[in-house]
Formats: sequence, C-alpha cells, structure tokens
Amino acid sequence: MLESCRRWRLTFASVSTRSEERHRVKRRAGTLTEPGVRNVYQDHIMEIFSTYGKIKMIDMPVERMHPHLSKGYAYVEFENPDEAEKALKHMDGAPQNRGVTDGWGGRGLVRVPGLSFPSSSFKQGVAVIKLKNPPVNSLSLELLTELVITLEKLENDKAFRGIVLSSDCPGIYSAGLDLLEMCGKSPGHYAEYWRAVQELWLRLYLSKLVTVAAINGPCIAGGCLISLTCDYRVLADNPKYVTGLNETVLGIVAPFWFKDTLVNTIGHRAAERALQLGLLFPPAAALQVGMVDQVVPEDQVQSTALSVMAQWMAIPDHARQLTKSMMRRATADRLLRQRDADVQNFVSFLSRDSIQKALQAYLEKLKQRKG
Amino acid sequence: MLESCRRWRLTFASVSTRSEERHRVKRRAGTLTEPGVRNVYQDHIMEIFSTYGKIKMIDMPVERMHPHLSKGYAYVEFENPDEAEKALKHMDGAPQNRGVTDGWGGRGLVRVPGLSFPSSSFKQGVAVIKLKNPPVNSLSLELLTELVITLEKLENDKAFRGIVLSSDCPGIYSAGLDLLEMCGKSPGHYAEYWRAVQELWLRLYLSKLVTVAAINGPCIAGGCLISLTCDYRVLADNPKYVTGLNETVLGIVAPFWFKDTLVNTIGHRAAERALQLGLLFPPAAALQVGMVDQVVPEDQVQSTALSVMAQWMAIPDHARQLTKSMMRRATADRLLRQRDADVQNFVSFLSRDSIQKALQAYLEKLKQRKG
Amino acid sequence: MLESCRRWRLTFASVSTRSEERHRVKRRAGTLTEPGVRNVYQDHIMEIFSTYGKIKMIDMPVERMHPHLSKGYAYVEFENPDEAEKALKHMDGAPQNRGVTDGWGGRGLVRVPGLSFPSSSFKQGVAVIKLKNPPVNSLSLELLTELVITLEKLENDKAFRGIVLSSDCPGIYSAGLDLLEMCGKSPGHYAEYWRAVQELWLRLYLSKLVTVAAINGPCIAGGCLISLTCDYRVLADNPKYVTGLNETVLGIVAPFWFKDTLVNTIGHRAAERALQLGLLFPPAAALQVGMVDQVVPEDQVQSTALSVMAQWMAIPDHARQLTKSMMRRATADRLLRQRDADVQNFVSFLSRDSIQKALQAYLEKLKQRKG
Repeated sequence: MLESCRRWRLTFASVSTRSEERHRVKRRAGTLTEPGVRNVYQDHIMEIFSTYGKIKMIDMPVERMHPHLSKGYAYVEFENPDEAEKALKHMDGAPQNRGVTDGWGGRGLVRVPGLSFPSSSFKQGVAVIKLKNPPVNSLSLELLTELVITLEKLENDKAFRGIVLSSDCPGIYSAGLDLLEMCGKSPGHYAEYWRAVQELWLRLYLSKLVTVAAINGPCIAGGCLISLTCDYRVLADNPKYVTGLNETVLGIVAPFWFKDTLVNTIGHRAAERALQLGLLFPPAAALQVGMVDQVVPEDQVQSTALSVMAQWMAIPDHARQLTKSMMRRATADRLLRQRDADVQNFVSFLSRDSIQKALQAYLEKLKQRKG
Repeated sequence: MLESCRRWRLTFASVSTRSEERHRVKRRAGTLTEPGVRNVYQDHIMEIFSTYGKIKMIDMPVERMHPHLSKGYAYVEFENPDEAEKALKHMDGAPQNRGVTDGWGGRGLVRVPGLSFPSSSFKQGVAVIKLKNPPVNSLSLELLTELVITLEKLENDKAFRGIVLSSDCPGIYSAGLDLLEMCGKSPGHYAEYWRAVQELWLRLYLSKLVTVAAINGPCIAGGCLISLTCDYRVLADNPKYVTGLNETVLGIVAPFWFKDTLVNTIGHRAAERALQLGLLFPPAAALQVGMVDQVVPEDQVQSTALSVMAQWMAIPDHARQLTKSMMRRATADRLLRQRDADVQNFVSFLSRDSIQKALQAYLEKLKQRKG
Repeated sequence: MLESCRRWRLTFASVSTRSEERHRVKRRAGTLTEPGVRNVYQDHIMEIFSTYGKIKMIDMPVERMHPHLSKGYAYVEFENPDEAEKALKHMDGAPQNRGVTDGWGGRGLVRVPGLSFPSSSFKQGVAVIKLKNPPVNSLSLELLTELVITLEKLENDKAFRGIVLSSDCPGIYSAGLDLLEMCGKSPGHYAEYWRAVQELWLRLYLSKLVTVAAINGPCIAGGCLISLTCDYRVLADNPKYVTGLNETVLGIVAPFWFKDTLVNTIGHRAAERALQLGLLFPPAAALQVGMVDQVVPEDQVQSTALSVMAQWMAIPDHARQLTKSMMRRATADRLLRQRDADVQNFVSFLSRDSIQKALQAYLEKLKQRKG
C-alpha cells in the first residue's frame, strides 16, 4: 500500500532500548485515536507492519488528561525480534515520494510528501507549511493525515510558535475536499475520511500556535475552511484567486461547523447569504466582507504573512493562547459533542445513490475537461 | 361575518368522491393548528359553516412528522348532505372583494383579496405577492391569515421556487401590525392575532422558497420584520422610504424574536442601538447598516428583485434549503419553545389599561390627521 | 482607616425618628450585598462605626424581589444613644478629600471624592460623572465602590434618566484596573476587589439609565470596559486617545465577560483579533471597527455626548429599558451564573508567584519612569 508507506515517512521509528522490548517498534500514529478512528488506525498499522512479520500486539497509549488523544505513537510488537529489525530498516529506508522542496531533518522531523517546509522559515520559530498535492491541493486522506500529524509535532515542539499555511502548487491554494475519497468507497472509508477532516479542523481551530494563511491561489470549500481557522488571512491580489464555501453550488451542504467558522468570521447575515449562494469572493469583495484580513500584491503574500506573524508573536504566548481558546472553545465543543453523529450524517449522505451519481458525473466532467 | 367569508376565498372546497363522505366538505384551514390556534380555527370554521346547516364533526388532520402543523385543510361534516352541497355552492360563489390586480386561477389557486399576483410572474416559478390593504398595508388578522395560507400553498406547489414580497399600495410597503386588532378587543382576539403574527414569521423565516423583498415604500415595524425574514432585500432609493423596528418610539417593546431576526441581520451592536432608539433608516443608512442588501432607483425595484431571484434560483433547491435551515433553525426554535408564553406576554401587555389608553390616543390622533 | 472614611461621604446618615430607634444610624451601604460581599461590607461598617462606641447590631435590609441587592442602606445600632449621636455628628462633618470640582448637595447627594458632578448637568435629568483618581484614573477599590453606590443612587432617583461618564483627569479617560489592588494583598482583598469590578460591570451593563461615554483621553483595559457598557460612545479625535482591551500585552487574559462585552460591540472576528493582539485603536480605527460610535473634535466631546443623550432621552424610558434588558440580559446572566467561580479564578491567578512577580516588575518600571 503505497499510500500508507508515504504516510509512514512522518513517523518516528525506533527500537526500544529496554532489551525485553527489543522487538517492539514505536510507530507515530497521529492523534486520530478517538473511538472510531482508533480502530481504523490500528488496522492501518497492522496492514503496514504485517508485511514484515507476525504482529503480537499493537498498543496505542493515550494522553492521561485527554483520553481521546493518543500520545502520538504506537508500540508494534512482533513475535520475532528479527522481523521488528527488518520492519525498522525498511521503514526508515522508504524512498521519498514526489518532489519536496525542502527538508526538516535538522529538527528531528522528516520530509513530508505533500507538505513542504522552506528551511529559511525556521529561524524564528515559524514553520511555513506549503500544501503540495497536485494538481489542485485536494485534501486527500493522506494529506489530511500528514497535516494533522505535522501540526501535532509542531504544537509539541517548543521551538515553534507559529505556522504559515500556504500552497506549493502554482495557481491554487486548495480546491477543498478530495472527491475521489468520497466516491465509490466503503462507508468505513467515508467515516475515516470525515474524521480526518474533523480532526484537522479541531487541530487548526484550537491550535496554540499562531496560524497565518498566506493565500496564493483560489481557496475553495475545504481549502477555504482551512484558511478560516487561521488567526489571520493574507490573500494575493489576483482576480482569479477567489475564496468561499461553495458547497451548495455542487448540491451539497456545508456541515454546521463549517458554518459556525464562517459565522464567527464574517457574521450571521453575510454567512447566510454566502453559504446559500455558494459565493466565491474575489479579493476586493473578500476583504470587504471579511473573508480575509488583507489583500496584497501576489509577490508580497509570503513576506506580509511573516510580518503579520511577527506582530502576533510579540504577544506573550500563554495569554494569547488562553484568549484564543476563550474565543473558540464553544464553537469547537459543538462539534466535539456530536462528532459521531456528524460522521454518521456524512456517511449516510455520501451513501445515497443520487449523491454518488452526481459526484461520478462531476468527476467525469472534470476528467473530460483535462482530456 | 364578512371577514371570514373573504378568507374563505383562499380555500379549496370539494365534495369527497367517496359516497359515504358525500356530505363532507374539505376546508383549507391554513396551518395554524398548534394547540391554542387549533381551537380558534375550529371555531371559525364552525361559525362560517353553521350558517349552512348543522355540523356533525370537524376534523383537522395534522402532518405525521410535524404534529403541530395541519395538513392544510379540514373536513367539515354536515348532518345533512344537502347542507354540505349548499355550503359548497355558496362558498365557491362568494364575491371578490376589493380590487385585485390579477388572478391565480390557472394554477388552482383563487384570487386573494389583500394580495395580488401579477400573472407575468408565474412564468419561471416565481410568485410576486403584493400586499394590498389600503391605506398603509397594516397587517390585519385577515391579511396575515391570507398570507400564511398563500405561503403554505406556494410551499406545497412544486411549480414555485421563489416569491417576491412587495406592495400594491402606492407609497407604502407596510406600516406594520394593525393597531385596530390590538385595541378594544377581547384577550382571545389578541391571542389569535399574535399567533397569526408568530405563524407568519415562522413560515417566512423558515420558508423553503427563495424570498426576496422588493421594498417600494416605507417598511416599518411588523412590515420591516417581514422584509427581514427574506433572503434578500431590495429597497427603492427614495428618502421617504425608511425601514426599521420603531416599537420603542410608540412606548412598546419588540418581542425577542423580532430582536433575534434583527441581530441576525445587522449584528448585536447595531441592533441594540436601532431597537432602543426605534431608528428608521433612510436608504443609504439602511444599506450601510445592513437593513437592506441593495438600494436601486424606484422604477428598478421589481426588476432587480427578479434578477436577484434568478441568481438564488440558480442554486440547487435542496442544498440551499438545508443551508437556510441550518442558519435559521436555532432562532426559530427559540420562539417555538416558548410560543405560548410569548402569546401570554402579548395578551397581558395589551390588556393593561395604560397600553389600551395609549393605543386609543394614538389611533385618535391618526384619525384626526386624516380628517 | 482613611479609605473607609472617604467612602462614608457617600452615605446618608440619619437618626431614626421613631424614639425606640433613636440610637440607630442608617448607613448607606451600597448594594454589594450578595453573599461574599455582604460580609465584607458589614466588616467595613463595623470598623468605621466602632470608633464611636459599642455596636449592638448591624442590619442590612435587602430588596424583596432581588434578595442579592441591599436596599442601599444599613442600620447600625449602638448600645448607647449618645454614641450614635456622636457617630452621626462626626460622619456628617467629615472633611472633603481631594479637589472635587462640584457638588451634588442640592439633590440630597453629597460630594463624591474621586467623582465630580458638574452642576450644570442636572438641569435635564442627566448626571455627568467625571472620574477623578489621579494620575490615570485607575479603578481603585475605593473608586469602584463609589461609582457603584453613586450609580445605585442615580438609578433610584427618579429625577435622573441618564448619565454621561467622562474623566476629570486631564489627558486620560481611564488606564483600567488598579494594579496596586492586585499586588501584595491578601486573597480576601483580591476577592473583594474583583467582586467590585463585577458589580460595576453588572450595574453599568444593565443600567436602566441612558449611559453615554464621553471619552476624553486614552481608554484602556478596565477603562475601556466601562465605555463598552455604555449605550453610546463619543471619542475625542486625538491620536493619543487609544481605546481597547490590551490585557494580553501584559501577559494576562481578559475575563469572559470582558470578551462578551467586546463581542457584542464589535462582533466575533474583530474581537478575536483585538483581544489576542491586545490592540489599542486610535480614533479613526476605533470608529471603523465599532469600538466607538462617533469621533469628534476634542472640545466637542461633552456637548456631543449631551446631544446624543437628548436623542436617547426622547424615547419612552420603560420601552427603552425593557429593550436594553432584552439585548443584554443573557450576557449578564452568564456572569451571574458563575460569579463565584469567576472570583475564584481571579484570586487563584493573582496568587501565583509568577504573576505577582510580573506585576511587581511592571509597577517598578512604572515608578522608574516617573522618577
């Protein structure tokens, strides 16, 4: 499974130093371990590692204070220590996929396929994360998972206080959710996918880090949601770079937490109109309605984002973080209270024949355009 | 009772085809059937139909999923089939009241006194409803009831996807609630009136149809409320065409759901100030504060409303409707949860001597102005 | 205790006319009588009056409908009638502290140290209250208490329908909470102080009076909170006169009811940014974001505030008051529901070593600046 392999590149792998645990492999498993996801992830880990030998046990420790969050790793115990060694060797040696512009090795973090980290950005505790999932930065399950795990690493790494979220795909910020994940798959897959979307939103919306969106292309639907979770949004002044939640245009409905995020950003009335009409705002309109905080010439997006970051980082972290939490906690709690129901909703919706047919037709159309 | 007769013109009357029910008359009774209203409506029906014979039973079926909503009709069973026939004959033949500019006969809907439907508007699934209750389009109980019943018809008629709400009284959109309904009447009447106001708001605020207000005159208090329930508001650019909830100026208080609607439209702070001062905004100010979405020359109000409608109708209905509901449901539920208490409040308030005296004095003043 | 003496100047002192109560002294005790505060106040009264003789009993009646509010006075019963007379004589003769520009004697209210009432303002039922606690109008416990008691008097005096809140310290409106009250004191003191801040906010936010802020200087943190509770804010157009809640800059977090007040005024998104960054807005930006309603030349702040007051006073009081309450009650209730927890939070926070050290360091810096 190539995808799982790629994802693996984000994990820490090590052999336990305690001799009786020598045949255990510590596997970074992200934090997607609240009930439903836990099983999915255990299955993945099982799938990946069982190619190297017979697995005796998988153990995913959780954080004591937040039992729905894993500690970010798992123990994979093989029946045979040699097989553990083999797994480790193969895992660490997995080839890099796709062109990634820069690495993060110096900080103990490996290169991330789908994300790029310009090394210049680490000087001041700011990570510049650039989405790279050609052609349109669709939020595939892989990309979502990588983003979530990367965010968790950055949150836990005291060297980092802020992230800039940008794109490494020319001419696009992100086109949003990946329709391929929502089409012709099993209900289990839809559930896993939706939990990953939820998890990314929760992580970003409640991030302790300062988050700035450097929007250097169209920023649509799920892509727009990512930008809306940020503390500040800078948009390149290009009439093609529209931004909005345009779900209704495709005949689907943004979930309530997309809506809550939008209402918190542009107010009830503007959100009501924008959501119903599926409006995509060009820069000037986006600025006026409050979808973004600043519009700048295209070549200044990155530098402006970093200047803004400096302003936010001048504030004592603890006070800023508590204030951010005070502003956003209630909104995040709404989803946390009904996360399972929200997944169920999504799965039921996608499982309808009419929706599957509409999505298939839409994908066909996209293919023909390219062809 | 002339009023009841008029209202009758909105109903479907038919003799059941099943022979054993031959002496039943199906009466469209609107949907005002949640507990308190149900009795009021049954009494009305009883009053109207008993002039034609002895009534054996009135049956008002409710919708299975929404037991507080009637199915929109009632069965009136006479003891004597001849009397049922007589009722039907007389009901269908009731004379038209007032000048109504156009009819709706082609669609199985009868002409509506107090409302006008320019026939040109039906081409594309849009009904243009024009209030016509001279001199100032006061929201009389009759008008409210007609509007509610008409809305229900349109909601259930798949041929319609949108309505434009405008006025057929030159120089006025609507002056709001009808003080005559609130003065010198019985508590029961006040309760019936208030339930009708609630019902209209609920219908409009949660309407599945696209609703556009084409505001071609001053739009005040209850009239403003109607416009605020719409998906979009176009106001004619005439300095006399002010809009707002000016209740405090008359010494009364807008109910909380008027307030909620305003807050959802212009935000908390602007609503706080506008409501306390009873502000009436002229066009430019109304646009700036968000009371309306667009201000256009007076002769373009209608055409602009129809253009806007076309934009909204380009969105798939189902997705748009669910999105609208997601935005508005919580606000509507607040009233639904305390509807009886809200009626009780209103009745208690109106039953005070001081309020009755103030209203009487105000009405006297209005009369003298005309005289 | 000099402080208590000063505060005493706000009270009504009288000997009961009923002979058996001749040795009772009626003491205006403000309304800070909900559980925790009541004891504090009884202790104060005990402390002040016991210098004149042996006290038999202190009785603080509460309002029947609002048992958490005192009736605004207390009975102090001495064992010896002569001592009661002595107390009365001394209390009424207490010397005025600090320079206060004007008195309120004509209305049965005594002069207030720390507050000034220009006499010209009483003509039309408007009290102009000017904070005067040099050098920066810090909200000391004394000033807070005086303000609360004065507000209560004005609320209960039918001659007054509005208050203008301004400053009598040149070049400053208010720098906010008094760090001296938060540094090196006992937990009990912190609790008393915080309850006084809560009480002032509750009084102002729910005031039945029209409240207009005439902001004639920088208006910061707690000072900004006071202005935000007002019905209308007029700011002098001086680039130095910034306004905002800048708590995070000092490493502290505005409590949730500061946040709620700000969100109600400028909306969720603007509040999120302003609070996290601790933004202080100069006049033009303050106007644009909605921190103030009007910016006028410095010499017109007072006259503009009075003009605005006239507009608000044109609205029937009862309707305006109910509308204000409808807009604000839910926000005030959030604090009322968790007032004790909020005090506890504040006390715990202040009791941390790190916070005390930070405050001490900050105060030292302020001292050095002056020196």
